Amino acid sequence: IQTKLPKVGTTIFTVMSQLAAQHGAVNLGQGFPDFAVPARLVDALARAMREGHNQYAPMSGLPALRASIAAKSKACYGIDLDVDGEITVTSGASEAIFDAVLAVVRPGEEVIVLDPCYDCYEPAIELAGGVAVHVPLDPADFSVDWQRVRDAVTPRTRMLMVNSPHNPSGAMLTADDMHALADILRDTGIVLLSDEVYEHIVFDGRVHESVLRWPELAARAFVVSSFGKTYHCTGWKVGYCVAPPALSAEFRKVHQYNTFCTFAPAQHAFAEMITTEPEHHEQLGAFYQAKRDRFREQLLTTKLRPLPVPGGYFQLVDYSGVSDLGDVDFCRWLTIEKGVAAIPLSPFYAEAPAGQRLARLCFAKVEATLDAAIDRLQRL
Amino acid sequence: IQTKLPKVGTTIFTVMSQLAAQHGAVNLGQGFPDFAVPARLVDALARAMREGHNQYAPMSGLPALRASIAAKSKACYGIDLDVDGEITVTSGASEAIFDAVLAVVRPGEEVIVLDPCYDCYEPAIELAGGVAVHVPLDPADFSVDWQRVRDAVTPRTRMLMVNSPHNPSGAMLTADDMHALADILRDTGIVLLSDEVYEHIVFDGRVHESVLRWPELAARAFVVSSFGKTYHCTGWKVGYCVAPPALSAEFRKVHQYNTFCTFAPAQHAFAEMITTEPEHHEQLGAFYQAKRDRFREQLLTTKLRPLPVPGGYFQLVDYSGVSDLGDVDFCRWLTIEKGVAAIPLSPFYAEAPAGQRLARLCFAKVEATLDAAIDRLQRL
Ligand SMILES: CSCCC(=O)C(=O)O
Ligand SMILES: CSCCC(=O)C(=O)O
Repeated sequence: IQTKLPKVGTTIFTVMSQLAAQHGAVNLGQGFPDFAVPARLVDALARAMREGHNQYAPMSGLPALRASIAAKSKACYGIDLDVDGEITVTSGASEAIFDAVLAVVRPGEEVIVLDPCYDCYEPAIELAGGVAVHVPLDPADFSVDWQRVRDAVTPRTRMLMVNSPHNPSGAMLTADDMHALADILRDTGIVLLSDEVYEHIVFDGRVHESVLRWPELAARAFVVSSFGKTYHCTGWKVGYCVAPPALSAEFRKVHQYNTFCTFAPAQHAFAEMITTEPEHHEQLGAFYQAKRDRFREQLLTTKLRPLPVPGGYFQLVDYSGVSDLGDVDFCRWLTIEKGVAAIPLSPFYAEAPAGQRLARLCFAKVEATLDAAIDRLQRL
Repeated sequence: IQTKLPKVGTTIFTVMSQLAAQHGAVNLGQGFPDFAVPARLVDALARAMREGHNQYAPMSGLPALRASIAAKSKACYGIDLDVDGEITVTSGASEAIFDAVLAVVRPGEEVIVLDPCYDCYEPAIELAGGVAVHVPLDPADFSVDWQRVRDAVTPRTRMLMVNSPHNPSGAMLTADDMHALADILRDTGIVLLSDEVYEHIVFDGRVHESVLRWPELAARAFVVSSFGKTYHCTGWKVGYCVAPPALSAEFRKVHQYNTFCTFAPAQHAFAEMITTEPEHHEQLGAFYQAKRDRFREQLLTTKLRPLPVPGGYFQLVDYSGVSDLGDVDFCRWLTIEKGVAAIPLSPFYAEAPAGQRLARLCFAKVEATLDAAIDRLQRL
């Protein structure tokens, strides 16, 4: 059988997690927490099952969950969302991204992505028959060169994808970025897809410039988020997509025939959690900032050089003081020989900058895990 | 925004469930059980969460769950599956169908579907840029006219979709059908997609002719099943796809970037359930047959004429003794005026047979629900 996705192999996250397991490495590769899901959430999910909420949820999501997402969006970003027409619950943020792309991108249309970017963007574009147009971020600080983005726009551009806080770098879009973005999109038919799965993990008093804060942008955007990232349950695969009614209608046409609806008991549990414990997402930045700061201090005792982390739960490190290997080889070596699994950056690029010596470490881990990793990294 | 799916509206299942709720009708429309999920399954899921299985499951599914699916497939159909290369767990059977179609169908290629068919097939084909070629089943008994199928094959035919036990009719493919199917596919490059979500709900000593029993067919097929149907938890959205390694590899390229993986705690629970309580799926036919028989007896006291139900949990009824309305209007009337929600058949067709007066009733309900419905149906 001839493949429709010739470029696709196993994701780097799976590859490195398997390698970590095989070699007993401390796994700071694939991004997932190794601490517990909030007890209230587990209890609420178990209760929802026992109360019998085990049949199809509404296609667009449980009304109570959509209402809690609307309330949170209002509290966080000042936007008034229509609970029925503008919010769709999905089986993870990945499904939301996949559905959004399939809903609007037609064969031959172009989608601008900013490299490095998460590896699920391009396959979705290809399956829609579209063409990914890669614009590199500034390799120094992963900021966007908006002139390059503007230059990449053509009459065939259908969508532009942004991600803040950014995976893998942690970079965040600023208010100036949002103005530049709006300038580019104004008077075009380009749809914006904003991947904001790390929206609540922001540091040092920064403001997360959600597209939902910017009415002109929100009017043309799919904004995607993830409960897995916010509630430490990446394996629950519940996310959502916010979009204006016309875009949501197209989105739902795909979602309806893809997964139709999402694990119902979890929807009850998240609705309860968001409503009764808003402190959880409000304090998530502080929670992770303590981890980031401690981990960074520890890294300074190694030969790795930690880069700044504005948001998200990944720490980039420059390993040029340790090795001249390319990043894929370095991460394999680090996992196999040194017992710490990391993620190379080049798989996030169509074309990685030559000589870039960066690896990504996930610090969504208990102190013991990070200590064990540091212990090994000190021996580099 | 111009739609990519001009034919798609809200599914008839959602429409009728909403109408049922609005009018306080007994809901025999959308297919879902109104009785409890096995306690063991709920307990196992709660335990899996408490034991911390809340992060990403492997992309292809939890190994223990894949192993239990392989063991069940061996016990039921005599096939030896490769646990690693031939089984992929998905976020419901719908996702599996969606992924399979996107994985192999290219723009301009044709997919033969047998009408009436489930409403998620055609949108997936359209999103892949393919063309659905509709071949009607025999309106008398919903059997396949294989000569018509053969006549529909062209050099562009990429896939053929079958569904047994069949939704909405309950019809089942026989061994003769499997031979005819094999004859048509032999020496072609056509991929088979077999939707077998009601595989364990078969009656009167019939054998479910799973494609997995037929090596020649299995060698070119995606076989899709659903735990929601087998374990009374349609809202959990866990299913799976069995396919030979080359097809599974293509399938996973899509799945990996669509949902990536499926709600992890449920995977632990299903693995435990399948292994420790095989009686559940072994006795599912008898469990539903009792419901079918009782419901049928009751229907004979009404003006509706029940058709034979070889498998599945739907009862078709001929309502021509009650009304001359088209089926969509009849089902609306039945819901609004008579308090029983049913599903019309015409949405399952590209072109429904003129004058067909059939409605679908779901009997996956406790006796009290069915009794309440019968009470109302006796007043027609
Ligand atoms: C779906 S596995 C990847 C998890 C993740 O978001 C990451 O590591 O970047
Ligand atoms: C996804 S809602 C439809 C449920 C179902 O399988 C049916 O009613 O046919």
